[in-house]
Amino acid sequence: MPVSVFVGTSVDGFIARANGTFDFLGGDDTEPHGYEEFFATVDAVVMGRNTFEVVAAFPSWPYEQKRVVVLSSKPVDLSPGRAARLEQMSGEPHEIVTKLAATGAHHLYVDGGITVQRFLNAGLVDRITVTRVPVLIGSGIPLFGVVPRDIALRHIATNTYRGGLVKSEYEVVK
Amino acid sequence: MPVSVFVGTSVDGFIARANGTFDFLGGDDTEPHGYEEFFATVDAVVMGRNTFEVVAAFPSWPYEQKRVVVLSSKPVDLSPGRAARLEQMSGEPHEIVTKLAATGAHHLYVDGGITVQRFLNAGLVDRITVTRVPVLIGSGIPLFGVVPRDIALRHIATNTYRGGLVKSEYEVVK
Repeated sequence: MPVSVFVGTSVDGFIARANGTFDFLGGDDTEPHGYEEFFATVDAVVMGRNTFEVVAAFPSWPYEQKRVVVLSSKPVDLSPGRAARLEQMSGEPHEIVTKLAATGAHHLYVDGGITVQRFLNAGLVDRITVTRVPVLIGSGIPLFGVVPRDIALRHIATNTYRGGLVKSEYEVVK
Repeated sequence: MPVSVFVGTSVDGFIARANGTFDFLGGDDTEPHGYEEFFATVDAVVMGRNTFEVVAAFPSWPYEQKRVVVLSSKPVDLSPGRAARLEQMSGEPHEIVTKLAATGAHHLYVDGGITVQRFLNAGLVDRITVTRVPVLIGSGIPLFGVVPRDIALRHIATNTYRGGLVKSEYEVVK
């Protein structure tokens, strides 16, 4: 089952500030850059508890009726999610993929720094689309982390947008 | 005087491994991506001692007869540089720029992680060209570091290359 990452970062590679906010990404003012088209192709979103808590505080739940899985080994209060299709799982990335595949998922969208890093390190990410916002913020939550060995990527396509976004799509070489 | 950065990084933002090597950038096998054209426009290269020591160990000195300035507050043995136009300076970035402008430089090329970060934080970098090599290495010497405040960039152009390089050029908004 393909696993994709689709994420915005500063040019220096942060997905959020240290406190979890990501005002620098532009929010609702961000130019359309293919997120909706991507989102339409996935049938489950997988994220960690930190990302869930940030997203749950949004004025509206952004994942519509898509199946959302919050990874946590400790109990998580899912009520702030307000979503009909919200569940908690725990375990290693390959267990999560197996469980989701067994319950009908065909394309996973993995989100959040720690979760992306865990799935990457487990060799389970197939595609990474990074959209770089033209700003340096200097510190925060990085998209990428330590890897057990070099991970080769294959560049698929890069698109640029009027406001300065640069979106690059890579396939993970396995 | 314009100050430019022109640098290759992994997709996760490293210019070198922790030990200073940068095999992952492709070395002599790197597809032409505008470096020679850029290099022809600069008349002085500014780097820190660490970068100098790495470059001095190359089989051949890569800066030809271009003026090269090694920044260091401690004495540096310049003899490994084998270059006719090699000098040491110390001081704050704006002092370096002033000294170089006073001695005939018109376009500086600032290289090396710490030096790039110092010049960026001093508000002295005008243009940043980052060429991303399609690999994640996970740790090493990062191009960017902590910044005193957000640094806005203006995207100028992005080019992609057959081997998977993605080169993005930014102007620093002042």
